[in-house]
Formats: sequence, structure tokens, C-alpha cells
Amino acid sequence: MTKILIVNPNTTASMTATIATAAQAVAAPATEIVAVTSSMGPASIEGFYDEAFAVPGLIEAFLKAPDADAGIIACFDDTGLDAARSAARYPVVGICEAALVTAGQIAKRIGIVTTLPRSIVPLEELVRRYGFADRAAVTACDVAVLDLEKPGSDAKAKLEAEIARALEKGADAIVLGCAGMADLAHELSVQFGVPVVDGVAAAVKQAEALAGLKLTTSRRGAYASPAGEKYTGLLERFAPASKE
Amino acid sequence: MTKILIVNPNTTASMTATIATAAQAVAAPATEIVAVTSSMGPASIEGFYDEAFAVPGLIEAFLKAPDADAGIIACFDDTGLDAARSAARYPVVGICEAALVTAGQIAKRIGIVTTLPRSIVPLEELVRRYGFADRAAVTACDVAVLDLEKPGSDAKAKLEAEIARALEKGADAIVLGCAGMADLAHELSVQFGVPVVDGVAAAVKQAEALAGLKLTTSRRGAYASPAGEKYTGLLERFAPASKE
Amino acid sequence: MTKILIVNPNTTASMTATIATAAQAVAAPATEIVAVTSSMGPASIEGFYDEAFAVPGLIEAFLKAPDADAGIIACFDDTGLDAARSAARYPVVGICEAALVTAGQIAKRIGIVTTLPRSIVPLEELVRRYGFADRAAVTACDVAVLDLEKPGSDAKAKLEAEIARALEKGADAIVLGCAGMADLAHELSVQFGVPVVDGVAAAVKQAEALAGLKLTTSRRGAYASPAGEKYTGLLERFAPASKE
Amino acid sequence: MTKILIVNPNTTASMTATIATAAQAVAAPATEIVAVTSSMGPASIEGFYDEAFAVPGLIEAFLKAPDADAGIIACFDDTGLDAARSAARYPVVGICEAALVTAGQIAKRIGIVTTLPRSIVPLEELVRRYGFADRAAVTACDVAVLDLEKPGSDAKAKLEAEIARALEKGADAIVLGCAGMADLAHELSVQFGVPVVDGVAAAVKQAEALAGLKLTTSRRGAYASPAGEKYTGLLERFAPASKE
Amino acid sequence: MTKILIVNPNTTASMTATIATAAQAVAAPATEIVAVTSSMGPASIEGFYDEAFAVPGLIEAFLKAPDADAGIIACFDDTGLDAARSAARYPVVGICEAALVTAGQIAKRIGIVTTLPRSIVPLEELVRRYGFADRAAVTACDVAVLDLEKPGSDAKAKLEAEIARALEKGADAIVLGCAGMADLAHELSVQFGVPVVDGVAAAVKQAEALAGLKLTTSRRGAYASPAGEKYTGLLERFAPASKE
Amino acid sequence: MTKILIVNPNTTASMTATIATAAQAVAAPATEIVAVTSSMGPASIEGFYDEAFAVPGLIEAFLKAPDADAGIIACFDDTGLDAARSAARYPVVGICEAALVTAGQIAKRIGIVTTLPRSIVPLEELVRRYGFADRAAVTACDVAVLDLEKPGSDAKAKLEAEIARALEKGADAIVLGCAGMADLAHELSVQFGVPVVDGVAAAVKQAEALAGLKLTTSRRGAYASPAGEKYTGLLERFAPASKE
Repeated sequence: MTKILIVNPNTTASMTATIATAAQAVAAPATEIVAVTSSMGPASIEGFYDEAFAVPGLIEAFLKAPDADAGIIACFDDTGLDAARSAARYPVVGICEAALVTAGQIAKRIGIVTTLPRSIVPLEELVRRYGFADRAAVTACDVAVLDLEKPGSDAKAKLEAEIARALEKGADAIVLGCAGMADLAHELSVQFGVPVVDGVAAAVKQAEALAGLKLTTSRRGAYASPAGEKYTGLLERFAPASKE
Repeated sequence: MTKILIVNPNTTASMTATIATAAQAVAAPATEIVAVTSSMGPASIEGFYDEAFAVPGLIEAFLKAPDADAGIIACFDDTGLDAARSAARYPVVGICEAALVTAGQIAKRIGIVTTLPRSIVPLEELVRRYGFADRAAVTACDVAVLDLEKPGSDAKAKLEAEIARALEKGADAIVLGCAGMADLAHELSVQFGVPVVDGVAAAVKQAEALAGLKLTTSRRGAYASPAGEKYTGLLERFAPASKE
Repeated sequence: MTKILIVNPNTTASMTATIATAAQAVAAPATEIVAVTSSMGPASIEGFYDEAFAVPGLIEAFLKAPDADAGIIACFDDTGLDAARSAARYPVVGICEAALVTAGQIAKRIGIVTTLPRSIVPLEELVRRYGFADRAAVTACDVAVLDLEKPGSDAKAKLEAEIARALEKGADAIVLGCAGMADLAHELSVQFGVPVVDGVAAAVKQAEALAGLKLTTSRRGAYASPAGEKYTGLLERFAPASKE
Repeated sequence: MTKILIVNPNTTASMTATIATAAQAVAAPATEIVAVTSSMGPASIEGFYDEAFAVPGLIEAFLKAPDADAGIIACFDDTGLDAARSAARYPVVGICEAALVTAGQIAKRIGIVTTLPRSIVPLEELVRRYGFADRAAVTACDVAVLDLEKPGSDAKAKLEAEIARALEKGADAIVLGCAGMADLAHELSVQFGVPVVDGVAAAVKQAEALAGLKLTTSRRGAYASPAGEKYTGLLERFAPASKE
Repeated sequence: MTKILIVNPNTTASMTATIATAAQAVAAPATEIVAVTSSMGPASIEGFYDEAFAVPGLIEAFLKAPDADAGIIACFDDTGLDAARSAARYPVVGICEAALVTAGQIAKRIGIVTTLPRSIVPLEELVRRYGFADRAAVTACDVAVLDLEKPGSDAKAKLEAEIARALEKGADAIVLGCAGMADLAHELSVQFGVPVVDGVAAAVKQAEALAGLKLTTSRRGAYASPAGEKYTGLLERFAPASKE
Repeated sequence: MTKILIVNPNTTASMTATIATAAQAVAAPATEIVAVTSSMGPASIEGFYDEAFAVPGLIEAFLKAPDADAGIIACFDDTGLDAARSAARYPVVGICEAALVTAGQIAKRIGIVTTLPRSIVPLEELVRRYGFADRAAVTACDVAVLDLEKPGSDAKAKLEAEIARALEKGADAIVLGCAGMADLAHELSVQFGVPVVDGVAAAVKQAEALAGLKLTTSRRGAYASPAGEKYTGLLERFAPASKE
């Protein structure tokens, strides 16, 4: 069995359930999916500030599960990905990076549709870092992350309208820019007649790929294991007993 | 079962055998690997000219196997990849692209070690197209492709020396830049203590990923199916009368 | 005399005639223009697949004319340019590259107007490779290549509309993105009051330039002559028994 | 008076003292420098993991001092800069960005000399984000951050050797890539006859500049204020009531 | 006292007055602002040709004031900046570069609004050189420089409309792309609720920063002092007999 | 006849003679070469300062010869090229740009060998502007421009050594980075067995190409004709009373 630990770095458990379902749907028979919700941090991750405060809970979740074969960070900002790679004993996959490398093998121009406009720039910076600046454009459908789950909202209509705009501007595949959209990929793909890639599903397959190749994060260079002694008592230290 | 067709676009059958073995070694239980040698073209692909003449045989191989679930082009130049994607009914993976996206998820800086100096520029152009220009450097160990298989050659020693140089210059993972090196990855990884990625193995997992996600090449935009009627009489001409 | 061999890499002879006329119109007195139609391949080149299958016929044409002083590939995709440079004894000019370096010396921002939308991405990849990514934008007037020659089509009106849009978006020169448009350059230039560059004409002058400077393709590095012995029996197969 | 809050995001108070001294030395007469040590996090910041865990303490420090006129993050990784800009009421300056924009106005090619090799890639990613990829090269003198303060270490000799190498490779100015080197800039500048820029000093002047221009972080787009309600009880939440 | 010499490289004295006022408004108490009008050159700088002919007068102004602590070139094209840095004894700041590095520390995406369309490309080239190509977009409000000062013109309305368009396209801060707009920054910032950066004000603070850090242009590499003896008789010729 | 005006923008007449000879050697039979020395400016152009002061004399030379069919600026810095294009009635070619577009059609990787190290950065900026940043590397052989003409100097030996180094680092063609080296190209090409491109010769062919195509600088956008009336009294001042 290959055990894949998926961490939802926000603290909204219902979103974890959506993510887990999407992951199970594509997992190989020999893959065990374990999806956990971060124990601390923001209820949703929308922008740089939320990202920063999601990292400690995320890392804690990876450190508590040293026996996994691969990890996934289930937020499209790939929150804390570099830190997680430095810390986890197994490879860690980000859903944005996984979605891009997947879409990049079946299409030339990619439209990434995210939730709020304030997430555009952080995602553009990711896209550039991953080498897709010439191939992928980020737009927002102006829906708050948590509204994706609210029955009766116009979230899906807004998402569809933004996908249509992206195709018109030249995209030949769509990437859904939020883990909370994981359940919509198949339906939208049929509707628009183009590949629609969900990052959670893509990440499960990348995690299976790395585990299957017995490859893990290089310990040479930037991902070298952190010097633990500087962190004795780590999480306790974040809540200083008596201080200031 | 997932059927993956691997085409060796050069005409050297012994190299196909090396490739098939490397592919089998990492394939999932439910994956069937079918490896074929191109029926026409150069004995090895070293540079732009060889690439061009390897494409017709390669495409023919994909067209003759319409029932595969995914295809792989087993030459590190990703020879004919865009044409194959336009023509095949299933997703097609290039071993260079697969190796880079795999290595890129476990390392920041990648050293690609290829065979002859004349292949450096074509690979640099691929690296740039795939968005890894800032992260991957291409060097050559100055071994002809077909010498990799000759017993008693100094090919492996030259390859090791070049890997050592790449690590010194800052690489934290190595990608082997020739399908003929597929059997060496594991051993070199142990020897140097860094991930060493073989493109053939990486491509098998990317092909399984795309097939598992039921994703195939977009038919919108640059990969739209070619207008076949313009080709009347052409493909027959490419197909040799007596198949070798 | 300087002999320039122009190969139309598609198999449509009427387009070769258009190309030859455009070339003659700008050739220097001491230049002899020889224009040939490829003996095999697609009737028009629209996208990656057509490109791949146009190469063997193209190369064959160059190999059959070893006494030329320079060669030109008269398809705006610069189909097979790198392979041709490796193989031909003389310098080979691509009409896209020639048009861009010409336009780049008389304008800062270039609008490239091609035929079908599916050709946009292949041309964008060329533009990037030639270093014009910051200066040139590719758009399509949505006319099939072969319709450019059909009397009574709305091809010219569509082309004019697209040129107007490109100028509005900031282009200060236009490059015609298809060899089949070669006869329209002068008229459109007068009409719009900006330089309109046709790749065929531009390529003739670049070919004259290289021949006049007695410069030919470097044999060091990526363009090193291909190792012919690996190809025994191959070119015969590509050459149709009775043709031209 | 202009009050500038400098936060040392690692927990080593002696380094805060070095930083405060360097800041005072260049502050304008009307500037009040307040330097604080983060109350939680790693003792030094060397790589992605340390960065992530330094952010909560850093943000806390800015939130506790709402009356400052500008803030400075005194770690050369510009740890948490985007999050701090989203949260603080005043502009926030990173010492890496400040050093680069300063050096960029007096030199064309910049050599950044940091401490450990593992910090090279994180800094290269910053350099790229700030638009200096073509102008600045990052190298390491292989000295641990905390060794910079140890009497009798060979830290300074190693730093000098690395500066000499950077100048040889074409740098015309040096940026010291660690806040702990702040006291060495002037001396090294005299010794090597080129500008040597310390990020702490540079940041004080950039902070004075922004405060003097009455400019603060845009609240439109990526730096929009975080949605506070998602964070009720923020820091308490980081220390979950019952530790799992 | 820190003496900052601001040179208006066009010959319009009323624009120098606007510039001086904007500079005084932000100068530190210990800063002395000296603003001079170039003694020769075009009345306004709009494009490459005007730029070239503004340089001699500009350089002359710097050479005539060897006792300044820093210099500023008050034209948004940063006309002659590299030459001035090579020649002046003190650091020289360009108002475009100063505006960009200032805006870049408080915003992610920058809209630069200049005067005439013909200035867009020269500014885009500057933006690219300064490393802001991914972050800043240049547009023109189609107002001639000298019309900015004409009472009753619709210049301000056009500028406001262009700012609104830039914000809609994603800018989160505005940079005013002409020294003649220096007096409008504050008012526009209040009106649009985003930072609006004037290059003259930004440059004063950068000049104070460099002077305060006792940093000046590197004499190693591209800014090495010019070999004066080659110029015998030249500067006299540039200096007009009767100074206007 | 096609009349090509070559302006040597430095004031050293012996260098103009070398340039004229190189130009004549490659000119077509119907081409008339007119080479002039600038009437004012530095004796050689080495760096940004010299460039700035060479422009007025250069422009004057073009304005004085309105009947030419094309112009060439014979300094490898392409000094004043954008201004000259704005002002001249005919197309203007820079020898650096001409050399790069020529070399780029016969080689993939280009080594540019210039004179003094201080010219490296200005040329790197040109290379980037022309889109050759990924393909061309600039190095210096450490010879002052005027020493190239001194009999008995070690200039040629130094140049040869630098060419050898460039080839070792992967160049497959060499561009001579100074107009004063124009006479050496052929000999060096034979000696090293690779194309060696001289900018003067390349520029003659580019000028013939543009004239032959009846193309001239676009008057739309950045090269729009300058508004002359702003310059009343200016050009007279630049024109020396008694022409030397």
C-alpha cells in the first residue's frame, strides 16, 4: 500500500471532506488516502497573510505522520510547500504545481481560474516560479472560497463565465484554482469540451508517481533538513508561556 | 488494465529492450507496457537532423496502436512530441518533460547530463520551452549514445565524472539525459546521495497519471487534430512495404 | 551569380508560383531564384503535425541541389529549419526569422498576422526562440492557407481587419505570417502607412546577405553535420519512386 | 519624529543589538529606531523551514506596535515580507529588497554574498522576484549565521575571499547577504574600493523615504487587509488548548 | 546639509519650477534643493531623439556643480542616466527608477501613466531594464508634456481616465510618468484611494538615502570614469557662448 | 545605385578608413559606400559617457546626407541608433544588431568579443534588448580600441586568446565586438574554423537588404519623427562653425 497524507491547511473540515472525496476518486487501488484538517490557522486561505499563518499547523500535520509515503498540501497557493519539503521524510506535492505540470502535458495554453482577485498576484508569482509564465494566465471568478460550498450561491455560474472568458482569450485547458472546486472538474470538462484539471486529483497522481519511483526530496541544497536543535520544543515556543 | 505504448524513435532494438526493462520496473500492477522500435529513421538521435527523420516512424507507431491508454516517446529530445500529441488518440508523454517535472518536485536545481555536446543546445531549447531555464543546466559527458551499451567502454566513468561536476556547480538532483541511461539511475542515486531521475521511469508514472485522471490532449488550439485529407497518399509512402 | 534555392515545403505548386514571383521581385540583378515544390508532404502547413511531415520532402529538396549558394524555407513556421541547416552545404534562411530580423530594424513593436488560430502557438514559440517575445505579438485572421488563393473569398478583408487591430494594440510594423500572403505586402503597406514585411522577400535579402558575406552555418555545436552512416537506406525510402 | 520599528525575526538578541547599532549609525536626526527581537521562532534563519517558523513572531511584533511610521524586517531572506505588508498599518521594508534597490542605483552588476550554501536558492528566488535576475549573483561564504558573532572564527576571512571572487566575476558592487554582517560594510568598502551595501542601513533609508513621502502599502489587490474575523483569537489559536 | 542638484533636462523653465516645488515639499529639513534648467536641448523630451539631444546640457549641469551630494535627472525617461553616473562625482538618481523602486515596496502591480503614446516604448524599455517587466504596465493619456501646464486644457481629465483604466486592469499603485505631473500626485492618491507615486518626490528621497549612506556610483566596471583626455575641446563646444 | 552612408561616430579618421575598406569588400556591385568621420565627439567610444557625447555629431552626419538610401552607425555600441532612426529619412542599421541577426542565422550560440571590460555591460544590455540574451555571451580581450591599430601591439594575440576561450565555453560563432576589428574577420574565421562575423560587413548587407526591400523606419510609435520646432537654435549650436 502507498499511504498519501493530504493536509488541508485551512481549518474548515467540510472542505477537507470535499478534498478527500476528489482524491479517493482518482487514487490507484493500492493507494490509501488519509486527509486531515489543520489544527490551527485561518478558516480559508486568501492571500499572503492567511498563507503565512497556515504553515505551522500544516507542518505539524506532516511531522505527526512520519509513516506516510507521500504528502499533499491541498491549498492552491501551495502554502508552505518549500518548508514542508524541507521537513517531511517523504516527498510533498503542491496542488498548484501538480495541476500545472499535468495540464502542461496535454495543452499549450492554460487558464487558471481562482476565487478572489486578491489571490491573482500570489498565484501569478507561483506560476512564474514553476516556469509557466509564458503559458498560463490567472483570473478570478470573484467568489469567496467558503461560498463555493454554500447551497444556492451563484458561485458555479460565476466560475463558468470566467472559464468561458479564459477559453476565448486562448486557453486550451483550464486549471481550477482552488481546492474547494475539486468536485467540479469532470462536469466542467464535459460542458466546455476541454481538459479541466483539478489540483487535488492531479496531486494524488503526482504523489503516487514519486512514491512509485521511490524518489524523495533532495537533502542537498535548499531542501537540506533544518537544523533541529534550534527548534527544541518548537510548537510550545510559538505559544510563549510568560513573555512580553 | 492501462496500456502504455512506449515508442523508441530510433531504430536500435537493443535500446528498446533497455527502455522496456526500466519501464516495467516502475509500472503499476495494472499497467501493461508495450515497447516498440521505430520501423524507420536513424539508429540514434543526436541533434536536430536525426530528430527530424525520426518523426515519421514515431508517428506511424502511434497511429498503428489506437487502443493504447497513453503513449511515451523514449528519446530525451522529446522528438516529435507536439506532432504526436496532435495525432494520437491518447495523451503522449515525453521523457525529458516527464523527468523535469518529476525532478522539479523534489529539487530546486537540476543537472541534466546528456551524451554528446551537440545535443546540449537542442536540450537547452527544450528546457527553456518547459519553463526550467532558471533551474536546470545541461552538460554532456561526451559519450555517443550507442557507446552506452558497449561493454568495456569508459562511458559510465565519464557519466559519473560529469554528475560530480554538476553537483559541484549547485545541482541538487540529476536527470539522465538519454533513454539509453535508463538502467543506471538507481545505482547512481545511491552512489551520489541525491535523486537521480531517469526519464523513461518518470514518463511511465506521468502516463499512468494522465490515464488515471482520464485526461487527454486538448483538441482546442495548437493540438487540434490535423486535417487528414491533406495527406492522401502520404502515410502509405512512409510505411515501408515489408515491415522489418 | 548567386543561386538561391527556395523550397516550398508544402505540396501546393500554385503557392510556389506566388512565392517565386515575390522572390524575383526583390532579388538583386546577380541573383538567380530557383523555387521548387516539395515532392511529398501536406498540401498546406497548419500546426505541429503538418510541420513534421513536411520535413523529409524539404530536406530532400536541399540535398538534391548541392550547388546553391543559399537556401530558403518558404513556410512561415520555419519548418525543419534546424535540420536543414545541419544538412545543407550552404546557409539556410527561414522566412519567419528573416521577416522578424528585418522588421526589428525598422520598428519597435511588431504585429504578426497569420492564417488560422491553431498556428498562433507554434509561431509564438518561434517568436520566443528568435528573441522577439517582448516585441512581437501573433494573431490570426482566421483564413485557411489555401483560401488565400481562392478568388472571391473574404480572405483579404479579414486580413485587413486583423492588421487594423494589431496597429491599434500598438504595433508599428506588420509581418505577414504566411508565405501565401507574399503578393500583398506592398499594397497593404501603402494602405496602412506602416512597413508591412513579407517573409519571402525578406528571406531573399537575408540569403543574399549571407551568401555575399561568404558565411555559412557553423559546423561546431548543434549544427554539426549529421552522422550520415546511421541513415543507410533511409532517404531512398523517403524519395517516392516516380515523382517530379 | 519618524519611528521605525526594526524586527529581528530570529530569536537571537545579540544579533538584534548589532542590527540596532547599524541602523542608528545611518538614521536621520528625526528618526527614532526601535529594534526588537522576535519572541518566538528559530535562533537563526537559514532556509525555507526556518523562514516559515519565524513569521508568526514577526507579525506579532508588528501588530504590537501600531504607532510606528515604518517597519523593517531585519533578515536577508525578507522573511514574511508580503504577510507583514498585508498586516501592518505602515509600510514595511525588507533588507534584501532595500539593499538591491540601493545597490542598483550605483552599480550595474551586484554580488550578493550570503552565509550558508543552503540559503543561495531562497535568495536567488528573491532576486528574481525583485527583478534583479540579470544583474545580481548570489554566492555563499560558507559561514553559519551565528558564527559571524563568535570571536576568533575565520568568518571574516571567508567573507573577504568570497567578495574577492565576486568582484573577479564582474560584480561592481557587493551586497552583504545577512543582517549579522551589518557592522562590516564600511570597512569592506574601503578595503575593496567598491560600494558595499548593508541591507539594514539601506532599509533604514528606504523606510525613511516611504515615511517621508507619506506612502504606505496599497490596500488594493494582493496586499488587501486580511479578513480578520477568520482569525479571532489569532495567536491563541496557534497554541491549541489541548495539544494533540 | 545635504545638497541635491536637480537638473531638468529640457529647457522649459516653468517645468523646473513645478519640479522644484514638488522636491521641496518632501525634502528632509537638512536637505538643500537646487533645481536648474538645462541650458540647451529640446523644450520637452518625447521619445528617443529628444532624449539624445538633452544629454549634453544635462551633463554640463552636473559638471558645473561638483559640490553637490547627490544629483537627480528630472525627466521620466531617465535621460542620460548612465552617462551622468559615469561623470558626476556623486550618486545620480533617475526619477523613473526612483518611482519604480518606491512603488515596488508598497504594491505588487504598477500602472505607469505617461503623456504621449510615442513615449510608451522608451519607457517599456526602461521598465524592463529596471527589472519591472512583470510588474509594471505603461500606458499614455495622450497629453503633450507642455499641455500639462496649460490652464483650461483637458489634460487632467485625460490623466484621470487613464488612471482609472490602469486600476481596472489590475494595478494597485500608480506612477506618474512625467516630471510635469509632479504636483498632482497627492490629490490623485486621495481621489483613487491608491498610492500615486511622483518620480520627483521619490527621487529626492532616494538621493537623500544614497547621500545618507555615503554611497556613490561604483568606479569599477561600466561606470568607470570616462577617459577625459579624449574630449579635449569638446565640452567647450557644447557650452553656448552666451548662457541663456 | 544604392548609396549607403556609414558614419563612424568617433572622431578617429584612421578607423573610418578601416571601416570603409571592410564595407567596400562586401558591398554589392550596385552599392556606393560613403564613409564619414563624425565632426565632434570622443576619439573612441568606450562606455556610456562616450556614447552620449558621440550622438550629436552622428545625427548631424545623417541630417547632412538626406539623399542616402540607408545609413550605418559604425560603432559596436550602436550608439544613438534609436535617435538616428527617428531622424534619418532612410533606414539606419547598427553594426551590433546587424552582426547578431547575421550570426543568429548560422549559429546557435554566439561569443561576442569586445575590447575593454567596461564595455561588457553596455553590450550585454544591447544583447538583451535585441533578444539574444539566451544565445550570446559578451567578453573582453582587454585591448583599448585605439590600440587595435597600433603596429607591434599584442592586441591580436589577446583577441585570439579570448576567441579560443569563447569557443571552449560553447560558442559556435564569433562576433567581433568593435568596428576597429573589421579587417580581421576573414583571417580569424579560417584560423578557428568557425564563422567570425564583423559588424561592419554584416551591416552593409542589412542596409542593402532594407534598401532593396524599399523598407524604411516606421513613423508610427516610438520612431515617429521628432517635433522639430522644439529645437530652434539647437542644431546650429551643435554644428561647429568651421568644419574640421
